[in-house]
Amino acid sequence: MVAAGNSLFTAGLARTAREVEARLALHLDQAGVTGTPPRLLASMRHAVLAGGKRFRPFLVLEMARLLGGREAAANALDVAAALECLHAYSLVHDDLPAMDNDELRRGQPTVWKAFDEWTAILAGDALLTLAFEILASHGSFDSAPGSGLPPATRARLVARMAAAAGPAGMVGGQMLDLEAEKLGQPALPDEHHVRRLQAMKTGALIAFAAEAGAISAGGSPEAIANARTYGEAIGLAFQISDDLLDVTGDEATVGKAVGKDLALGKATLVAVAGVEAAREHLAAAVDAALAALAPFGEAADPLRQAALFQLDREH
Amino acid sequence: MVAAGNSLFTAGLARTAREVEARLALHLDQAGVTGTPPRLLASMRHAVLAGGKRFRPFLVLEMARLLGGREAAANALDVAAALECLHAYSLVHDDLPAMDNDELRRGQPTVWKAFDEWTAILAGDALLTLAFEILASHGSFDSAPGSGLPPATRARLVARMAAAAGPAGMVGGQMLDLEAEKLGQPALPDEHHVRRLQAMKTGALIAFAAEAGAISAGGSPEAIANARTYGEAIGLAFQISDDLLDVTGDEATVGKAVGKDLALGKATLVAVAGVEAAREHLAAAVDAALAALAPFGEAADPLRQAALFQLDREH
Repeated sequence: MVAAGNSLFTAGLARTAREVEARLALHLDQAGVTGTPPRLLASMRHAVLAGGKRFRPFLVLEMARLLGGREAAANALDVAAALECLHAYSLVHDDLPAMDNDELRRGQPTVWKAFDEWTAILAGDALLTLAFEILASHGSFDSAPGSGLPPATRARLVARMAAAAGPAGMVGGQMLDLEAEKLGQPALPDEHHVRRLQAMKTGALIAFAAEAGAISAGGSPEAIANARTYGEAIGLAFQISDDLLDVTGDEATVGKAVGKDLALGKATLVAVAGVEAAREHLAAAVDAALAALAPFGEAADPLRQAALFQLDREH
Repeated sequence: MVAAGNSLFTAGLARTAREVEARLALHLDQAGVTGTPPRLLASMRHAVLAGGKRFRPFLVLEMARLLGGREAAANALDVAAALECLHAYSLVHDDLPAMDNDELRRGQPTVWKAFDEWTAILAGDALLTLAFEILASHGSFDSAPGSGLPPATRARLVARMAAAAGPAGMVGGQMLDLEAEKLGQPALPDEHHVRRLQAMKTGALIAFAAEAGAISAGGSPEAIANARTYGEAIGLAFQISDDLLDVTGDEATVGKAVGKDLALGKATLVAVAGVEAAREHLAAAVDAALAALAPFGEAADPLRQAALFQLDREH
């Protein structure tokens, strides 16, 4: 039933990258005009515009397009840009010496390495704050009156994004990750712990991406719930395939150091359950993602391909 | 015309502290219930609930009360709590070793000192994110249907708070501050540079506090503009009096190291213009704050006292 191959997914990613990067560049230019100091702006640009798959924005835009067509996707562009700012902040802070101490990201020096630690802390803080500004003042660049999302939708998206990114979401997941790595807690992480950690650290924001696309498009409660189920499943699949890449991937293709998670004692599904069990969990998560798309017909093929792609990632 | 002394201001601060701390405790309990890891929650509590003057929340609640009475002040309580979370995040990150490297805050160990660096980075990230969640999902604890602020007001407050706290606001100001301290840039900061730095670093959030109280209360455009003018003026006064305290204050009374700003080569008004000129600027800022309150009659006396208090701060 699904169109063969990855062509719709890869074309969608490429289009998303073009559209979202143009929008992000506009927001960063605007931040410069309103008085952002040059060093801070340069560090933010380094974090946001130096590549990236733009996977989360793809989920936002594609889900909005599925439920509301071209106009809904255009209306969701700032939501995608906001989410990518937030994702970029999380990488900048994760890479800090006091955190994961990474010097390389997407083949480029990380922000603290290219600038310094204090600049990287501030760049992350600025991007997180800018993400909420973009989301709340959605459509402010568009000249047509009434363009953009209704205020109630914006308030809802802010509340949902904050919940996904906050202490019971992404930041909490990063805390659990570092507790395992730096404090050896818990001493013997089990599968339940790893699943909770990953659902918080990576899953929450990916689930929000799909949900936010549906909310932006004005989807029905059922459509929004389906979008969220899809997002949770593909988020899990994405994380497991990422863990597998750390073990089986090629460093040049992946664009960052491999084997590092295991060496650091990170609590991954591969570490607690082994490669084969992880592959089985991955297949089940992809099945769940496809099941959530069942009501949507073949217009959902790009999102189906995105799920299937996780089965066999090389980067 | 103004009621003599500080009694209305100090009573208002005390009441604000009680109300806002109770509300913050509720939000932190809620964060625990929804899955925030215990270590992260403990570090957030350390940052938020270990004292503080609650000056910004006072401005929110008092301005809301002035324009809309008791009901408006109750409705603004989450706005005040959100702002205090955001203020607490900024202190946690400012205190980090890579930033100001402070070990003491309000007579207590700073978060990185009480926990460690990575926990402090995450605690700040979590508090910043929680601030936006509280603001956007305002009133979610209140059982009465329809309580809290309308969604359009919440979206507006999120956009304004993000602008005040973001790269062209507070974070940008911190960047300018650290550029002066760590890079010696600019080599000879002039008064214009110091004023810009302080307006961004401290002024923007204090101005937002007063403005947010007026927005929450549904004030007229003129009332909101007056509130903002007052907030900008008292923010400037607060910063100058803070700089003066660093030179003239008593360490035990101030509750943190004094003389440190000058020793670090921070760009303060005292450093570029001297103590006497700084005192003149302070008096002018207090006059401007009082002038902005002229339309409001004697109900504004707590806010007048707050401005006058800056003339002679001891802590």
